[in-house]
Amino acid sequence: MANPSLLILAGDGIGPEVMAEVKKLIRWFEAKRGIAFDVSDDLVGGAAYDKSGTPLTDETMARAQAADAVLLGAVGGPKYDVLDFSVKPERGLLRLRKEMDLYANLRPAQCFDALADFSSLKRDIVAGLDIMIVRELTSGVYFGEPRGIFTEGNERVGINTQRYTESEIARVARSAFELARKRNGKVCSMEKANVMESGVLWRQVVQEVHDKEYPDIQLSHMYADNGAMQLVRAPKQFDVIVTDNLFGDVLSDCAAMLTGSLGMLPSASLGAPMANGRPKALYEPVHGSAPDIAGQGKANPIACILSFAMALRYSFDLGVEAARVEQAVEKVLADGLRTADLMGPEGGVPVSTSGMGDAILAAL
Amino acid sequence: MANPSLLILAGDGIGPEVMAEVKKLIRWFEAKRGIAFDVSDDLVGGAAYDKSGTPLTDETMARAQAADAVLLGAVGGPKYDVLDFSVKPERGLLRLRKEMDLYANLRPAQCFDALADFSSLKRDIVAGLDIMIVRELTSGVYFGEPRGIFTEGNERVGINTQRYTESEIARVARSAFELARKRNGKVCSMEKANVMESGVLWRQVVQEVHDKEYPDIQLSHMYADNGAMQLVRAPKQFDVIVTDNLFGDVLSDCAAMLTGSLGMLPSASLGAPMANGRPKALYEPVHGSAPDIAGQGKANPIACILSFAMALRYSFDLGVEAARVEQAVEKVLADGLRTADLMGPEGGVPVSTSGMGDAILAAL
Ligand SMILES: CC(C)[C@H](C(=O)O)[C@@H](O)C(=O)O
Ligand SMILES: CC(C)[C@H](C(=O)O)[C@@H](O)C(=O)O
Repeated sequence: MANPSLLILAGDGIGPEVMAEVKKLIRWFEAKRGIAFDVSDDLVGGAAYDKSGTPLTDETMARAQAADAVLLGAVGGPKYDVLDFSVKPERGLLRLRKEMDLYANLRPAQCFDALADFSSLKRDIVAGLDIMIVRELTSGVYFGEPRGIFTEGNERVGINTQRYTESEIARVARSAFELARKRNGKVCSMEKANVMESGVLWRQVVQEVHDKEYPDIQLSHMYADNGAMQLVRAPKQFDVIVTDNLFGDVLSDCAAMLTGSLGMLPSASLGAPMANGRPKALYEPVHGSAPDIAGQGKANPIACILSFAMALRYSFDLGVEAARVEQAVEKVLADGLRTADLMGPEGGVPVSTSGMGDAILAAL
Repeated sequence: MANPSLLILAGDGIGPEVMAEVKKLIRWFEAKRGIAFDVSDDLVGGAAYDKSGTPLTDETMARAQAADAVLLGAVGGPKYDVLDFSVKPERGLLRLRKEMDLYANLRPAQCFDALADFSSLKRDIVAGLDIMIVRELTSGVYFGEPRGIFTEGNERVGINTQRYTESEIARVARSAFELARKRNGKVCSMEKANVMESGVLWRQVVQEVHDKEYPDIQLSHMYADNGAMQLVRAPKQFDVIVTDNLFGDVLSDCAAMLTGSLGMLPSASLGAPMANGRPKALYEPVHGSAPDIAGQGKANPIACILSFAMALRYSFDLGVEAARVEQAVEKVLADGLRTADLMGPEGGVPVSTSGMGDAILAAL
């Protein structure tokens, strides 16, 4: 049987650097554990635009569709700010999400014990924090039509459309309920049903799916503005949060920052099962391309490495191996190893991007 | 000359209780400072629905249009959750905002020194915090058409429309720049121009207004998801933030919670100048109707009292009197007086809603 295939799209900025550490890990798995992948590389974002004038070519799109899993680094950079909307680096990422139909974006916000003092929040508010945000990723205002900038009378008008169908809401709700079953059995759904009809439908459908299929899960609903407040006030009240594409974008970043260490946070974007039973899947760190530190060996590779661990768990049913990677990360942190972003007043052992990657391999 | 008119819409939940303290303050101003208002009361939200089956009658709407300023308590409560979208308490508030064309919602997020330990954030991150969020309040996805829940094929679809015209963006940008001139000269504009065309237009127009009319202000742009992160990470980097209706809803609540004391935060919603030169204006606390503690004398009246102080400043050009009220609030806090929501581990002198109101009067 052929090895499972991994398509690596390292992208822009620090993407290639952090992905280089993941590649070491992939080689380690083949050499030491006999778990081999067919790895190939391709371009996305600004890197793809520089070569072919588009942030994602049709060929790359086809390879992503065929891959067992896609690992993505990061996209974007100031160099591309002047580009037209339609060819901005982000469009490459959005095209992948949309065409692979990756509707469930899993964003764990976890506070690592060794790093709890790093948060801008008080230690007792965030220590031990472990919430999972499930963000709808293929619909809503990100993709709704009509959209664009039009002229009306003598002025410009900017339009986007928030649009959710019942089935789009139901499937991401199911993802959230399934995750909750493996966690603490609680889901909080967030929208603005007091202001938006799309939020009214969201709330109804989530409740219906719950009542019919997941009555064992404790479901609550919260307005998204209150959600932002509650995340800041007392984040540990949450287990799984499910929300739409745009609220998910803002709320998951808010939640990520609570942990104090963005360089640590992975994500998985999952779609429907393929013929081989594996879900369509793309894994990427939550952090961006950080152009200001790119190429300096300062980037923290952990978020990207933990994204690979999520791939092991969700695409390849290697939960035990995933946990081993996660434990190795915790060990190097407990040992005091720190990339620049993790270097706080209490000090630590400074390491470069590759130093951190090597240490994690050694800890495995 | 007639006294300036104040329409009081106390609304639901704790609205009437906190407004009672503002009324004491209004009487104090008349008796002690010769500053008199023609005060009248009316209903909004659930209270209006209970009486007339609508959260805001046409008569009340007309009185609000005619008033020199409107003071609002809070709307909503679980009793009304079952109501149809079109008659929910919130619609009363949204109608006031829309028909009075109150496009600039000013939400100061200020951390009171005596309460800094109340925040879930570390003291040094929030002590001295003083930012002003200017939220567009009459357009965007709150009001855009088409909207509703429709049937397509055999499923329901929820639709809302984000829509901004150039002039809508320009006028709220001007409000932000004007405020920045009186503060620290910095404006940060937030949108998702990397994903939404309405955000692209927002960014362009804000930049154009800046370049033509406010080149003295330091303007920056930030994606709204990053904005949420930066608010949590290092809120003191901001002076004035300007953003759209929906992002403003979420981000201003996030910012409010940073201060740790929602019961302290006022807001002003301002429109164009009326014939008498005063802006159309509605003032309301940021907190909600808190049905769980309504009627128990536990509510903190300070947010509502500080909203009245904003009315003195922005509607009646009584900035000196406004500052006196604000100082009185700071004094009672420094004296250790605490309503239930402000009672932390370090203790304090417990006071009721009216006890707090009386103490502020005494401090004046
Ligand atoms: C890069 C951008 C298009 C993207 C988004 O808005 O979804 C990012 O912020 C994210 O959260 O993955
Ligand atoms: C009550 C509700 C309609 C309102 C809003 O969403 O604008 C509230 O959250 C606010 O921020 O004033």
